Amino acid sequence: MNFCSNCGSNQLQFIVPEGDNKQRFVCPDCDTIHYQNPRIIAGCLPVFEGKILLGKRAIDPRKGYWGLPAGFLENGETPEEGALRELHEETLAKGHIKHLQSVFSLPQFNQVYLIYLVDLISDEMGTTSETLESKLFEVKDIPWEDIAFESTTFALEEYLKNPEAKMTKRGHFIWEKEKRFGI
Amino acid sequence: MNFCSNCGSNQLQFIVPEGDNKQRFVCPDCDTIHYQNPRIIAGCLPVFEGKILLGKRAIDPRKGYWGLPAGFLENGETPEEGALRELHEETLAKGHIKHLQSVFSLPQFNQVYLIYLVDLISDEMGTTSETLESKLFEVKDIPWEDIAFESTTFALEEYLKNPEAKMTKRGHFIWEKEKRFGI
Ligand SMILES: [Zn+2]
Ligand SMILES: [Zn+2]
Repeated sequence: MNFCSNCGSNQLQFIVPEGDNKQRFVCPDCDTIHYQNPRIIAGCLPVFEGKILLGKRAIDPRKGYWGLPAGFLENGETPEEGALRELHEETLAKGHIKHLQSVFSLPQFNQVYLIYLVDLISDEMGTTSETLESKLFEVKDIPWEDIAFESTTFALEEYLKNPEAKMTKRGHFIWEKEKRFGI
Repeated sequence: MNFCSNCGSNQLQFIVPEGDNKQRFVCPDCDTIHYQNPRIIAGCLPVFEGKILLGKRAIDPRKGYWGLPAGFLENGETPEEGALRELHEETLAKGHIKHLQSVFSLPQFNQVYLIYLVDLISDEMGTTSETLESKLFEVKDIPWEDIAFESTTFALEEYLKNPEAKMTKRGHFIWEKEKRFGI
Protein backbone atom coordinates (compact mmCIF):
# COMPACT_ATOMS: atom_id res chain seq x y z
CA MET A 1 0.00 0.00 0.00
CA ASN A 2 1.73 3.15 -1.22
CA PHE A 3 -1.07 5.71 -1.46
CA CYS A 4 -4.23 6.48 0.52
CA SER A 5 -7.14 5.07 -1.49
CA ASN A 6 -9.40 7.74 0.02
CA CYS A 7 -7.49 11.00 -0.53
CA GLY A 8 -4.49 9.96 -2.64
CA SER A 9 -1.90 11.04 -0.06
CA ASN A 10 1.58 9.52 -0.40
CA GLN A 11 2.32 10.14 3.29
CA LEU A 12 0.86 6.87 4.63
CA GLN A 13 2.33 5.76 7.94
CA PHE A 14 2.51 2.16 9.19
CA ILE A 15 1.77 2.78 12.86
CA VAL A 16 -0.35 1.59 15.77
CA PRO A 17 -3.46 3.82 15.84
CA GLU A 18 -4.62 5.20 19.20
CA GLY A 19 -6.65 2.59 21.09
CA ASP A 20 -5.38 -0.21 18.85
CA ASN A 21 -2.55 -2.71 19.35
CA LYS A 22 -1.57 -3.53 15.77
CA GLN A 23 0.24 -1.60 13.08
CA ARG A 24 -2.02 -0.29 10.31
CA PHE A 25 -1.60 1.94 7.30
CA VAL A 26 -2.86 5.31 8.57
CA CYS A 27 -3.31 8.42 6.44
CA PRO A 28 -2.19 11.61 8.24
CA ASP A 29 -4.00 13.77 5.69
CA CYS A 30 -7.55 12.34 5.94
CA ASP A 31 -7.17 10.19 9.10
CA THR A 32 -8.36 7.02 7.34
CA ILE A 33 -7.16 3.77 8.92
CA HIS A 34 -6.69 1.13 6.21
CA TYR A 35 -7.43 -2.27 7.75
CA GLN A 36 -6.25 -5.40 6.01
CA ASN A 37 -7.99 -8.66 6.85
CA PRO A 38 -7.94 -12.34 5.87
CA ARG A 39 -9.97 -13.45 2.90
CA ILE A 40 -12.43 -16.33 2.69
CA ILE A 41 -12.14 -19.15 0.18
CA ALA A 42 -15.44 -20.99 -0.31
CA GLY A 43 -15.22 -24.48 -1.74
CA CYS A 44 -16.94 -27.81 -2.27
CA LEU A 45 -16.35 -31.46 -1.59
CA PRO A 46 -18.73 -32.67 -4.35
CA VAL A 47 -20.10 -36.20 -4.22
CA PHE A 48 -22.12 -38.20 -6.76
CA GLU A 49 -23.15 -41.80 -6.10
CA GLY A 50 -20.29 -42.26 -3.64
CA LYS A 51 -17.68 -40.84 -5.99
CA ILE A 52 -15.81 -37.59 -5.36
CA LEU A 53 -15.36 -34.86 -7.95
CA LEU A 54 -11.84 -33.47 -8.23
CA GLY A 55 -10.55 -30.94 -10.73
CA LYS A 56 -7.09 -30.95 -12.30
CA ARG A 57 -5.83 -27.40 -11.84
CA ALA A 58 -5.22 -25.40 -15.02
CA ILE A 59 -3.52 -22.57 -13.16
CA ASP A 60 -0.69 -22.12 -10.73
CA PRO A 61 -0.05 -22.72 -7.91
CA ARG A 62 0.05 -26.51 -8.36
CA LYS A 63 -1.05 -26.58 -11.97
CA GLY A 64 -1.69 -30.17 -13.08
CA TYR A 65 -2.51 -31.39 -9.57
CA TRP A 66 -5.96 -32.37 -8.32
CA GLY A 67 -8.00 -30.18 -6.04
CA LEU A 68 -11.45 -29.34 -4.77
CA PRO A 69 -13.40 -26.54 -6.49
CA ALA A 70 -12.86 -23.39 -4.42
CA GLY A 71 -12.27 -19.68 -4.79
CA PHE A 72 -12.47 -16.28 -3.15
CA LEU A 73 -15.85 -15.37 -1.71
CA GLU A 74 -17.29 -12.26 -3.35
CA ASN A 75 -18.97 -9.31 -1.66
CA GLY A 76 -22.74 -9.84 -1.41
CA GLU A 77 -22.52 -13.64 -1.42
CA THR A 78 -23.18 -16.17 1.32
CA PRO A 79 -20.38 -18.76 1.59
CA GLU A 80 -22.83 -21.41 0.36
CA GLU A 81 -23.57 -19.35 -2.77
CA GLY A 82 -19.88 -18.79 -3.32
CA ALA A 83 -19.07 -22.50 -2.98
CA LEU A 84 -21.70 -23.52 -5.55
CA ARG A 85 -20.62 -20.69 -7.89
CA GLU A 86 -17.02 -21.87 -7.77
CA LEU A 87 -18.14 -25.47 -8.35
CA HIS A 88 -19.88 -24.43 -11.53
CA GLU A 89 -17.22 -21.97 -12.71
CA GLU A 90 -14.45 -24.52 -12.31
CA THR A 91 -16.10 -27.80 -13.32
CA LEU A 92 -19.51 -26.89 -14.87
CA ALA A 93 -21.11 -29.19 -12.28
CA LYS A 94 -24.15 -28.28 -10.19
CA GLY A 95 -25.17 -29.44 -6.74
CA HIS A 96 -26.84 -28.80 -3.41
CA ILE A 97 -25.19 -27.93 -0.09
CA LYS A 98 -25.43 -30.72 2.53
CA HIS A 99 -23.40 -29.21 5.37
CA LEU A 100 -20.17 -27.45 6.25
CA GLN A 101 -17.54 -30.18 6.01
CA SER A 102 -14.29 -28.50 6.98
CA VAL A 103 -12.90 -25.16 8.03
CA PHE A 104 -9.20 -24.54 7.91
CA SER A 105 -6.94 -21.56 7.77
CA LEU A 106 -3.62 -20.69 6.22
CA PRO A 107 -2.59 -17.88 8.57
CA GLN A 108 0.63 -17.19 6.65
CA PHE A 109 -1.49 -16.36 3.61
CA ASN A 110 -4.33 -14.66 5.47
CA GLN A 111 -6.84 -17.17 4.14
CA VAL A 112 -9.70 -19.09 5.73
CA TYR A 113 -11.29 -21.97 3.81
CA LEU A 114 -14.92 -23.03 4.20
CA ILE A 115 -15.53 -26.36 2.43
CA TYR A 116 -19.10 -27.61 2.01
CA LEU A 117 -20.17 -31.17 1.36
CA VAL A 118 -22.19 -31.00 -1.85
CA ASP A 119 -24.54 -33.52 -3.49
CA LEU A 120 -24.13 -33.23 -7.24
CA ILE A 121 -27.40 -33.27 -9.14
CA SER A 122 -25.84 -35.31 -12.00
CA ASP A 123 -22.49 -36.41 -13.36
CA GLU A 124 -22.46 -33.54 -15.85
CA MET A 125 -19.17 -31.68 -15.73
CA GLY A 126 -16.46 -30.40 -18.02
CA THR A 127 -13.21 -28.54 -18.55
CA THR A 128 -12.90 -24.81 -18.06
CA SER A 129 -10.22 -22.15 -18.14
CA GLU A 130 -9.45 -23.06 -14.52
CA THR A 131 -9.67 -26.85 -14.81
CA LEU A 132 -7.86 -29.14 -17.26
CA GLU A 133 -10.07 -32.09 -16.33
CA SER A 134 -13.06 -32.69 -14.06
CA LYS A 135 -13.42 -36.25 -12.90
CA LEU A 136 -15.41 -38.39 -10.46
CA PHE A 137 -13.12 -40.67 -8.46
CA GLU A 138 -14.05 -43.86 -6.68
CA VAL A 139 -12.58 -43.66 -3.19
CA LYS A 140 -10.02 -46.37 -4.03
CA ASP A 141 -8.83 -44.37 -7.06
CA ILE A 142 -8.24 -41.00 -5.39
CA PRO A 143 -4.83 -39.80 -6.64
CA TRP A 144 -3.33 -39.15 -3.21
CA GLU A 145 0.15 -38.55 -4.64
CA ASP A 146 -1.13 -35.84 -6.95
CA ILE A 147 -3.37 -33.82 -4.65
CA ALA A 148 -2.69 -30.10 -4.98
CA PHE A 149 -2.66 -29.06 -1.34
CA GLU A 150 -2.16 -30.63 2.07
CA SER A 151 -5.45 -29.00 3.12
CA THR A 152 -7.27 -30.84 0.32
CA THR A 153 -5.88 -34.12 1.63
CA PHE A 154 -7.07 -33.14 5.11
CA ALA A 155 -10.63 -32.45 3.91
CA LEU A 156 -10.78 -35.70 1.91
CA GLU A 157 -9.33 -37.85 4.70
CA GLU A 158 -11.67 -36.39 7.31
CA TYR A 159 -14.64 -36.96 5.01
CA LEU A 160 -13.67 -40.56 4.32
CA LYS A 161 -13.26 -41.39 8.01
CA ASN A 162 -17.04 -41.10 8.29
CA PRO A 163 -18.91 -39.90 5.19
CA GLU A 164 -22.17 -39.63 7.17
CA ALA A 165 -20.77 -37.45 9.98
CA LYS A 166 -22.19 -33.96 10.07
CA MET A 167 -19.41 -32.55 12.25
CA THR A 168 -17.25 -29.80 10.84
CA LYS A 169 -13.56 -30.66 10.88
CA ARG A 170 -11.11 -27.92 11.78
CA GLY A 171 -7.47 -27.38 11.01
CA HIS A 172 -4.83 -24.92 10.04
CA PHE A 173 -1.84 -25.30 7.82
CA ILE A 174 1.56 -23.65 7.99
CA TRP A 175 3.15 -23.54 4.60
CA GLU A 176 6.58 -25.16 4.28
CA LYS A 177 8.02 -24.72 0.86
CA GLU A 178 10.19 -27.82 0.97
CA LYS A 179 7.37 -29.99 2.21
CA ARG A 180 4.61 -28.71 -0.01
CA PHE A 181 6.42 -28.84 -3.31
CA GLY A 182 8.80 -31.67 -2.56
CA ILE A 183 11.88 -29.66 -3.44
CA MET B 1 -12.17 3.91 -3.36
CA ASN B 2 -11.05 7.16 -4.99
CA PHE B 3 -7.35 6.61 -5.66
CA CYS B 4 -5.16 3.66 -6.67
CA SER B 5 -3.39 2.50 -3.50
CA ASN B 6 -0.51 1.23 -5.63
CA CYS B 7 0.36 4.21 -7.88
CA GLY B 8 -1.88 7.03 -6.55
CA SER B 9 -3.77 7.47 -9.84
CA ASN B 10 -7.14 9.26 -9.64
CA GLN B 11 -8.30 7.59 -12.85
CA LEU B 12 -9.73 4.39 -11.28
CA GLN B 13 -12.42 2.74 -13.37
CA PHE B 14 -15.19 0.51 -11.98
CA ILE B 15 -15.33 -2.06 -14.77
CA VAL B 16 -15.40 -5.79 -15.46
CA PRO B 17 -11.77 -6.87 -16.05
CA GLU B 18 -11.01 -9.19 -18.97
CA GLY B 19 -11.77 -12.80 -18.07
CA ASP B 20 -13.83 -11.73 -15.05
CA ASN B 21 -17.59 -11.33 -14.62
CA LYS B 22 -17.79 -8.74 -11.83
CA GLN B 23 -17.08 -5.03 -11.68
CA ARG B 24 -13.84 -4.14 -9.91
CA PHE B 25 -11.85 -0.98 -9.33
CA VAL B 26 -9.18 -1.17 -12.02
CA CYS B 27 -6.26 1.27 -12.39
CA PRO B 28 -5.55 2.17 -16.03
CA ASP B 29 -2.14 3.58 -15.09
CA CYS B 30 -0.59 0.57 -13.31
CA ASP B 31 -3.13 -2.16 -14.29
CA THR B 32 -3.80 -3.13 -10.67
CA ILE B 33 -7.18 -4.77 -10.04
CA HIS B 34 -8.41 -3.86 -6.57
CA TYR B 35 -10.49 -6.77 -5.27
CA GLN B 36 -12.85 -6.23 -2.35
CA ASN B 37 -13.93 -9.26 -0.37
CA PRO B 38 -16.03 -10.15 2.68
CA ARG B 39 -14.44 -10.00 6.08
CA ILE B 40 -14.45 -12.63 8.81
CA ILE B 41 -15.73 -12.03 12.32
CA ALA B 42 -14.41 -14.60 14.79
CA GLY B 43 -16.38 -15.00 17.98
CA CYS B 44 -17.12 -17.17 21.00
CA LEU B 45 -20.05 -18.75 22.73
CA PRO B 46 -18.33 -19.01 26.12
CA VAL B 47 -19.64 -21.46 28.72
CA PHE B 48 -18.73 -21.93 32.38
CA GLU B 49 -20.50 -24.53 34.55
CA GLY B 50 -23.54 -24.48 32.26
CA LYS B 51 -23.81 -20.71 32.26
CA ILE B 52 -23.25 -18.55 29.17
CA LEU B 53 -21.08 -15.46 29.12
CA LEU B 54 -22.62 -12.44 27.40
CA GLY B 55 -21.20 -8.94 27.15
CA LYS B 56 -23.22 -5.72 27.28
CA ARG B 57 -22.01 -3.72 24.30
CA ALA B 58 -20.24 -0.44 25.09
CA ILE B 59 -20.19 0.64 21.46
CA ASP B 60 -22.63 1.03 18.61
CA PRO B 61 -24.29 -0.61 16.83
CA ARG B 62 -26.64 -1.85 19.55
CA LYS B 63 -24.86 -0.23 22.48
CA GLY B 64 -26.35 -1.46 25.77
CA TYR B 65 -27.57 -4.75 24.30
CA TRP B 66 -26.09 -8.16 25.05
CA GLY B 67 -23.90 -10.02 22.60
CA LEU B 68 -21.28 -12.69 22.17
CA PRO B 69 -17.60 -11.64 22.17
CA ALA B 70 -16.57 -11.31 18.50
CA GLY B 71 -14.52 -9.14 16.21
CA PHE B 72 -12.70 -8.89 12.91
CA LEU B 73 -10.13 -11.59 12.27
CA GLU B 74 -6.63 -10.16 11.86
CA ASN B 75 -4.06 -11.06 9.24
CA GLY B 76 -1.78 -13.85 10.49
CA GLU B 77 -4.35 -15.31 12.88
CA THR B 78 -6.27 -18.55 12.77
CA PRO B 79 -10.00 -18.02 13.44
CA GLU B 80 -9.59 -19.92 16.72
CA GLU B 81 -6.86 -17.52 17.83
CA GLY B 82 -8.97 -14.56 16.78
CA ALA B 83 -12.00 -15.82 18.69
CA LEU B 84 -10.02 -16.27 21.93
CA ARG B 85 -8.31 -12.89 21.47
CA GLU B 86 -11.67 -11.16 21.11
CA LEU B 87 -13.00 -13.02 24.14
CA HIS B 88 -10.16 -11.63 26.24
CA GLU B 89 -10.16 -8.15 24.72
CA GLU B 90 -13.88 -7.71 25.27
CA THR B 91 -14.48 -9.49 28.58
CA LEU B 92 -11.03 -10.28 30.08
CA ALA B 93 -12.10 -13.95 30.19
CA LYS B 94 -9.95 -16.86 29.02
CA GLY B 95 -10.99 -20.21 27.59
CA HIS B 96 -10.36 -23.17 25.31
CA ILE B 97 -11.94 -23.89 21.94
CA LYS B 98 -14.29 -26.89 21.94
CA HIS B 99 -15.61 -26.81 18.37
CA LEU B 100 -17.06 -24.57 15.70
CA GLN B 101 -20.61 -23.88 16.87
CA SER B 102 -22.13 -21.72 14.15
CA VAL B 103 -21.29 -20.10 10.85
CA PHE B 104 -23.50 -17.40 9.46
CA SER B 105 -23.17 -14.61 6.98
CA LEU B 106 -24.53 -11.13 6.56
CA PRO B 107 -24.17 -10.81 2.79
CA GLN B 108 -25.47 -7.23 2.78
CA PHE B 109 -22.56 -6.26 5.00
CA ASN B 110 -19.97 -8.57 3.41
CA GLN B 111 -19.39 -10.36 6.69
CA VAL B 112 -19.03 -14.02 7.63
CA TYR B 113 -19.17 -15.01 11.31
CA LEU B 114 -17.38 -18.03 12.77
CA ILE B 115 -18.57 -18.67 16.35
CA TYR B 116 -16.68 -21.21 18.47
CA LEU B 117 -18.01 -22.97 21.54
CA VAL B 118 -15.51 -22.12 24.29
CA ASP B 119 -14.98 -23.62 27.74
CA LEU B 120 -14.00 -20.82 30.10
CA ILE B 121 -11.14 -21.71 32.43
CA SER B 122 -12.72 -19.74 35.29
CA ASP B 123 -15.41 -17.17 36.00
CA GLU B 124 -12.89 -14.34 35.90
CA MET B 125 -14.08 -11.53 33.65
CA GLY B 126 -14.53 -7.78 33.67
CA THR B 127 -15.51 -4.60 31.93
CA THR B 128 -13.49 -3.13 29.08
CA SER B 129 -13.69 -0.25 26.64
CA GLU B 130 -15.87 -2.48 24.46
CA THR B 131 -18.06 -4.03 27.15
CA LEU B 132 -20.09 -2.26 29.85
CA GLU B 133 -20.66 -5.50 31.73
CA SER B 134 -19.57 -9.13 31.37
CA LYS B 135 -21.92 -11.61 32.96
CA LEU B 136 -22.56 -15.34 33.18
CA PHE B 137 -26.23 -16.13 32.57
CA GLU B 138 -28.13 -19.22 33.64
CA VAL B 139 -30.08 -20.44 30.62
CA LYS B 140 -33.37 -19.41 32.22
CA ASP B 141 -32.06 -15.87 32.73
CA ILE B 142 -30.82 -15.13 29.22
CA PRO B 143 -32.13 -11.64 28.34
CA TRP B 144 -33.78 -12.63 25.05
CA GLU B 145 -35.46 -9.24 24.66
CA ASP B 146 -32.15 -7.42 24.92
CA ILE B 147 -29.94 -9.49 22.65
CA ALA B 148 -27.95 -7.28 20.29
CA PHE B 149 -28.37 -9.16 17.03
CA GLU B 150 -30.71 -11.71 15.47
CA SER B 151 -27.65 -13.81 14.64
CA THR B 152 -26.69 -13.93 18.33
CA THR B 153 -30.16 -15.26 19.12
CA PHE B 154 -29.69 -17.86 16.37
CA ALA B 155 -26.37 -19.07 17.80
CA LEU B 156 -27.75 -19.24 21.35
CA GLU B 157 -30.96 -21.02 20.35
CA GLU B 158 -29.13 -23.58 18.24
CA TYR B 159 -26.70 -24.24 21.08
CA LEU B 160 -29.49 -24.68 23.63
CA LYS B 161 -31.38 -27.15 21.42
CA ASN B 162 -28.58 -29.60 22.13
CA PRO B 163 -25.57 -28.30 24.08
CA GLU B 164 -23.67 -31.55 23.45
CA ALA B 165 -24.09 -31.56 19.66
CA LYS B 166 -20.88 -31.05 17.75
CA MET B 167 -22.58 -30.09 14.48
CA THR B 168 -21.97 -26.64 13.10
CA LYS B 169 -25.17 -24.68 12.55
CA ARG B 170 -25.41 -22.54 9.44
CA GLY B 171 -27.46 -19.51 8.56
CA HIS B 172 -27.49 -16.15 6.93
CA PHE B 173 -29.23 -12.96 7.89
CA ILE B 174 -30.63 -10.22 5.74
CA TRP B 175 -30.73 -6.96 7.59
CA GLU B 176 -34.10 -5.24 7.88
CA LYS B 177 -33.84 -1.91 9.59
CA GLU B 178 -37.42 -1.86 10.88
CA LYS B 179 -37.17 -5.37 12.23
CA ARG B 180 -33.74 -5.18 13.79
CA PHE B 181 -34.10 -1.92 15.65
CA GLY B 182 -37.85 -1.98 16.18
CA ILE B 183 -38.42 1.42 14.62
ZN1 LIG C 1 -5.95 9.87 3.04
ZN1 LIG D 1 -2.48 2.38 -10.15
